[in-house]
Amino acid sequence: RLVLSSRRRIPEFNSFVSRTNTCGELRSSHLGQEVTLCGWIQYRRQNIFLVLRDFHGLVQVIIPQDESSASVKKILCEAPLESVVKVSGTVISRPPGQENPTMPTGEIEIKVKTAELLNACKKLPFEMKDFVKKTEALRLQYRYLDLRSSQMQYNLRLRSEVVMKMREYLCNLHGFVDIETPTLFKRTPGGAKEFLVPSREPGKFYSLPQSPQQFKQLLMVGGLDRYFQVARCYRDEGSKPDRQPEFTQIDIEMSFVDQMGVQSLIEGLLHYSWPSDKDPVVTPFPSMTFAEALSSYGTDKPDTRFGMKIVDVSNVFRKTEIRFLQDALSKPQGTAKAICVPEGVKHIKRKDIESIKQFAADQFNQEVLPIFLKASRNWNSPVAKLVTEDQRLELIRLMEIQEEDVVLLTAGEHKKTCSLLGKLRLQCADLLETKGMVLRDPAQFSFLWVVDFPLFLPKEESPTELESAHHPFTAPHPSDLHLLYTEPEKVRSQHYDLVLNGSEIGGGSIRIHDAQLQQYILATLLKEDVKLLSHLLQALDHGAPPHGGIALGLDRLMCLITGAPSIRDVIAFPKSFRGHDLMSSAPDSVPVEELRPYHIQVSWPTEAE
Amino acid sequence: RLVLSSRRRIPEFNSFVSRTNTCGELRSSHLGQEVTLCGWIQYRRQNIFLVLRDFHGLVQVIIPQDESSASVKKILCEAPLESVVKVSGTVISRPPGQENPTMPTGEIEIKVKTAELLNACKKLPFEMKDFVKKTEALRLQYRYLDLRSSQMQYNLRLRSEVVMKMREYLCNLHGFVDIETPTLFKRTPGGAKEFLVPSREPGKFYSLPQSPQQFKQLLMVGGLDRYFQVARCYRDEGSKPDRQPEFTQIDIEMSFVDQMGVQSLIEGLLHYSWPSDKDPVVTPFPSMTFAEALSSYGTDKPDTRFGMKIVDVSNVFRKTEIRFLQDALSKPQGTAKAICVPEGVKHIKRKDIESIKQFAADQFNQEVLPIFLKASRNWNSPVAKLVTEDQRLELIRLMEIQEEDVVLLTAGEHKKTCSLLGKLRLQCADLLETKGMVLRDPAQFSFLWVVDFPLFLPKEESPTELESAHHPFTAPHPSDLHLLYTEPEKVRSQHYDLVLNGSEIGGGSIRIHDAQLQQYILATLLKEDVKLLSHLLQALDHGAPPHGGIALGLDRLMCLITGAPSIRDVIAFPKSFRGHDLMSSAPDSVPVEELRPYHIQVSWPTEAE
Repeated sequence: RLVLSSRRRIPEFNSFVSRTNTCGELRSSHLGQEVTLCGWIQYRRQNIFLVLRDFHGLVQVIIPQDESSASVKKILCEAPLESVVKVSGTVISRPPGQENPTMPTGEIEIKVKTAELLNACKKLPFEMKDFVKKTEALRLQYRYLDLRSSQMQYNLRLRSEVVMKMREYLCNLHGFVDIETPTLFKRTPGGAKEFLVPSREPGKFYSLPQSPQQFKQLLMVGGLDRYFQVARCYRDEGSKPDRQPEFTQIDIEMSFVDQMGVQSLIEGLLHYSWPSDKDPVVTPFPSMTFAEALSSYGTDKPDTRFGMKIVDVSNVFRKTEIRFLQDALSKPQGTAKAICVPEGVKHIKRKDIESIKQFAADQFNQEVLPIFLKASRNWNSPVAKLVTEDQRLELIRLMEIQEEDVVLLTAGEHKKTCSLLGKLRLQCADLLETKGMVLRDPAQFSFLWVVDFPLFLPKEESPTELESAHHPFTAPHPSDLHLLYTEPEKVRSQHYDLVLNGSEIGGGSIRIHDAQLQQYILATLLKEDVKLLSHLLQALDHGAPPHGGIALGLDRLMCLITGAPSIRDVIAFPKSFRGHDLMSSAPDSVPVEELRPYHIQVSWPTEAE
Repeated sequence: RLVLSSRRRIPEFNSFVSRTNTCGELRSSHLGQEVTLCGWIQYRRQNIFLVLRDFHGLVQVIIPQDESSASVKKILCEAPLESVVKVSGTVISRPPGQENPTMPTGEIEIKVKTAELLNACKKLPFEMKDFVKKTEALRLQYRYLDLRSSQMQYNLRLRSEVVMKMREYLCNLHGFVDIETPTLFKRTPGGAKEFLVPSREPGKFYSLPQSPQQFKQLLMVGGLDRYFQVARCYRDEGSKPDRQPEFTQIDIEMSFVDQMGVQSLIEGLLHYSWPSDKDPVVTPFPSMTFAEALSSYGTDKPDTRFGMKIVDVSNVFRKTEIRFLQDALSKPQGTAKAICVPEGVKHIKRKDIESIKQFAADQFNQEVLPIFLKASRNWNSPVAKLVTEDQRLELIRLMEIQEEDVVLLTAGEHKKTCSLLGKLRLQCADLLETKGMVLRDPAQFSFLWVVDFPLFLPKEESPTELESAHHPFTAPHPSDLHLLYTEPEKVRSQHYDLVLNGSEIGGGSIRIHDAQLQQYILATLLKEDVKLLSHLLQALDHGAPPHGGIALGLDRLMCLITGAPSIRDVIAFPKSFRGHDLMSSAPDSVPVEELRPYHIQVSWPTEAE
């Protein structure tokens, strides 16, 4: 059950209440003690044994059988399971041979003297022991029952502990100030995905911000120097699986800092706050440029727990009779790339190859060619047989291929081939893991900094225009500053992402503190309406210190730490993927008269819509 | 300037950044050290001295005058005030006689070797030293400049420290779990004052809850046992001075606890987290019933730093010729009550008496009679002269009147007279304080529990119906349970308020954990639509433990601790009293197309409205 951190003093769980102990803490060292316990009836056997549960664990209670204890017996035998009772009695040894070594309290039991039914449980919608098998919708509808599971108790308590340690590190060790910033704010430019909150002034709306970005920068201008906040943020993305309309980030900003400073801070923070029941975090974290992440892993968030890196094999195939390679390599930006799937011969079946090829064709309009070390094993693939012996040997050398491996080869434009192979790398890892290979040990935590992102990207809908790769307050890389006025699309930024096991768990940047530069980027390059940000531009002109920061996604981080299948398992009351609270059924209808003070009315969709 | 808590290890303020020290920390013990400082130019004298400021304090920097340092001199002399610079140099003694004992760093100064202009400050809207004299609107518009003041730095840092200590007490010492509850929730029954958030489903709205009340009770049902959260709450009250649309409460709930348990917890919490530069909190706090608070102080939040308590003097005036006393006392519920204003003879002028009488007549439709100890001094009040010598002596005995005191007498129904005299007590305190008397020392912290509130109050608009005095989940007082079915208006509750210096800073209760009782109160007594709360009623039926809790208003508490004139002074980015963010000008207009996904449109008021 609950693993309490051994590095810390154990808190006093029994202060201010009538119990003397928690159920889960009792051990042989308590033998002979008179204890009072409060908890839920987990189960009962033959009206003799009863197992009592609280957040801390289980303990066995002996139901007294003698005549004088008839009333105690009646209470404990008649109360339905999951009723809440208070019992007092003595901690005694279990009879020899009846100890339960799998139960932390398995050496002892409670000889009960008095019992009180605090609240009876009416009929449950299902038996508690079957709960984990139920649909997630049912678990969310009866969330208060789901929270009683040892897994949810562990997840939520661990989350609280980790955040507390982060606070100690930031506040007590490094002088950060915990400052609450408003959540009723103003719409940010281009701020789609922001929830609106109607005000009592006709036509005026607050919006719920996606992050405290502007406020934390203003705090730096205000000389607050080292700010952090465990910040509630909001993002309205409609229905997206494993996203929540409200989420939490560890939001940090510092003055007079550079990229290395922020990175060291975060490495120290995670090292300090890491749960003691997990392997300690090794610092410093490795770092990789965005360019390298793309070319080696086909993604900006590589899972570095395993290899299968993308290798450029263009030079191997300069002379080839394979048509799609010929075509690709004849173009100026053409490349040939491959990944090597370990033990692929054993595990990758013909139907897997078919589905890989289909995926590549459908999603990337690319061809993929599987190559086996021994030409003879390239099942009925006349194309693969066109790979010459020299090419095969050169591939083996370049990619360190073992006998049983399979190479997946593709060719085309750099970014596209990398992205495709990055996806195939993960799909093959899934595949190998279903066959029992361990590529991505969930108990291993591989942190990685990804740096040197481009500052701008071409807009998807209009590629001649630029948009910020992250946000418009990100500072350009100092060595690329001169390019800003000539080839802005080539400018790298001082943005950094923190990646853990292939998930982005944080991102931040050194910010622009020069008003003129900020104005140039907003107005000239991004064509934004600077009026909406005039307060920020003005602030930069009034003595803004150089500053930078980062935000860590707490829900995702806790999800990875606990190994939970979904972020909903590390949130007490999550919304369904449609954004509903299935317990209270929010969002809900509101009477028209309650809309009136906000000067809004519902536009009901017409039949046609 | 900033007083750092002496009880705690001083944090490392210079980790991860290029400075070696803060400006404010330098002392004689640093003499000879090479330091690098970053800060704002506070002022400059004769191009020789410069005072550099950071959050920690001020330090004097000597601008080098020799030829070889011309570039350093240029930077430091030309940068406008409030520019941000980085300087390196040596800590040296000030020449004898030039020490500044009023400045913590006043024994030393910095002999600068290098200087770098990090950001120049453009023209400020006003000189910083004049800032405190500006209107609050201007301070809010340029909040990032206002935050640079030592007072705002102190307030926000102290707030962060106090909250951190509260967390240590709750999490580390007493095993509370910090759990985040949703702010996108469902409208609560009778939940006027809740902001709405339109969803993407036509006609469906989230609402921003006024407190996590339902969630914290559900956590108890979920076995989370000891919960706390520094919770953001929302209340839409339109324009109310010194209220904020979003505010913060320390939200706490426990299972298996009684009223005394919660009170002890909070006493320990405040004692532990109290700032070390204030007088320590004395525990336990005194307790007073609601009935006593009303009859002695005329309010449910008495300021117990001073006396002037209300005294029932009905028996003194059973026989009187004063008409309004006669009238009042002849009625079955009639009473005569008085307060004694110390040294009133000296300080209360005739015009003050006139305004008191006017106030009583206007606001309470009551008469007030001032009585002086010596009949001769009851200036031209023929009525006061009707007070007999016996009555005067009896009053002196009952009310412990001193020679120079003035008695204010009124008569009528109990609650009304008490309320009136409660208000007059505070008005007279204001009056005496303007004359230099100290009644309410802001450095004195008088905590008080007010208990035994009524569970229900008659509805203002329809006095035969009942409404909850606090909220419908409050448990009735166990000794009044039988009255619930016969005379519910007489039932006392297990609600408790925490009052500090006459302000309510917290309130809580033991909650109802019995579904049937909750159903009876909601449906039968309060006539609420229980469908909206079916999830809570169901949860109570599924093994809800007895539980209770409290919420402390953090903004108000910090306001009292820091002695700030307004809660806006303990919030980094407060809204104006109209609910506006004057810096960014939120709330703001939103283009029609951004309302479309939410299926709402603005109902513009017509001319007529």
